[in-house]
Amino acid sequence: MRVGIVGGTGDIGEGMALRISQVHEVILGSRELEKACATSDACHLALNEKGLPCTCSGVTNQDAVDRAEVVILAIPFQHLAATLSSLTGFGEKVVISPVNPLGRKEFFFFAPPPEGSAALLVQRLLAGKARVCTAFNNIPAGSWKALGEPLAHSVAVCGDDPAARDLVKGFVGSIPRLAALDAGPLAVSPMIEAITPLLLNIAKYQKMRDVGIRFTG
Amino acid sequence: MRVGIVGGTGDIGEGMALRISQVHEVILGSRELEKACATSDACHLALNEKGLPCTCSGVTNQDAVDRAEVVILAIPFQHLAATLSSLTGFGEKVVISPVNPLGRKEFFFFAPPPEGSAALLVQRLLAGKARVCTAFNNIPAGSWKALGEPLAHSVAVCGDDPAARDLVKGFVGSIPRLAALDAGPLAVSPMIEAITPLLLNIAKYQKMRDVGIRFTG
Repeated sequence: MRVGIVGGTGDIGEGMALRISQVHEVILGSRELEKACATSDACHLALNEKGLPCTCSGVTNQDAVDRAEVVILAIPFQHLAATLSSLTGFGEKVVISPVNPLGRKEFFFFAPPPEGSAALLVQRLLAGKARVCTAFNNIPAGSWKALGEPLAHSVAVCGDDPAARDLVKGFVGSIPRLAALDAGPLAVSPMIEAITPLLLNIAKYQKMRDVGIRFTG
Repeated sequence: MRVGIVGGTGDIGEGMALRISQVHEVILGSRELEKACATSDACHLALNEKGLPCTCSGVTNQDAVDRAEVVILAIPFQHLAATLSSLTGFGEKVVISPVNPLGRKEFFFFAPPPEGSAALLVQRLLAGKARVCTAFNNIPAGSWKALGEPLAHSVAVCGDDPAARDLVKGFVGSIPRLAALDAGPLAVSPMIEAITPLLLNIAKYQKMRDVGIRFTG
């Protein structure tokens, strides 16, 4: 599967590329092609050093959308609307939002837009055509990047299009040790996104690093 | 430690009594003393059958408050305000809220009161005197009751009084296999309570039972 990462030069985007490009063809996008190529080169280096395969290539964000079968929006919430308004051609593609709208005072808190969540905002901005799902919201960048450690996290997947949700679940499950769990329609996304500030609070108050979740049952 | 369970005859309250009364003295409260005694007797039977200790005794909800060092409010959200207004004597006791305000349409969702969470409502109703913490919010009744299975869950603890938070963390950690994690002030409670409707959605759409969480890191 060809996976486009919009915002692939950020911490999360690069971490995702490191893991996903061992299994799928990754086209790593950035506003600037040069930066995308530099991050892609860094992924090749890091993976080759460990004798691991890497299919990554650097492209523009627009190319990452145009050429991908699945598009991941690895964008900080505050840049989400501007980035989406600068891109076209989502059509009916499957779009994954791992985005979490957060605020910070003494502690971290969930700060959703009027739509209720980042994913619901994405669905509105893409005019209801693209098939939006959440996934990967609760995996810290540090976990993606720690190639020596298994990525043993649970991933709650929600979305309104059942076929897209199944595709995303299969994609998540193709990444070693990730467990995809069907959480229902996109209206469930606020509950998934709100876990991330909780994980940051636990990391802060419990003095831990890269806190993630596993669902049990 | 003497642990009072207000609403101890409900599913969650009885499940808690089954686990906690193996380790601590549990006084299991109900509006009706007879019901409390019946549930307490059932706990003795279930635990004795397995050769496990049981310290449970049935009391009124008011006695559960008066005589306990730590009070657990095992009450459905819709009865929370009425139950608290019928009780007195919380003083500066440590009060644990495992309560989750939920709504249900096609899917489950977080439906907090104007205060922002059940725990923040409890803090307001107890006039800021009792030392309120959250704990146990994300453990299903079925997991509490499945005595043949380890209770291998993570428990996020938050609260504004650091000493109370430490006491609750120690109490949680004294129950075999539970892992207590400090999540910060009581303002973090909405993020903890909102996990429960997500777990119910995962159980529904993924066709699982008694879905819980473990934090990793």
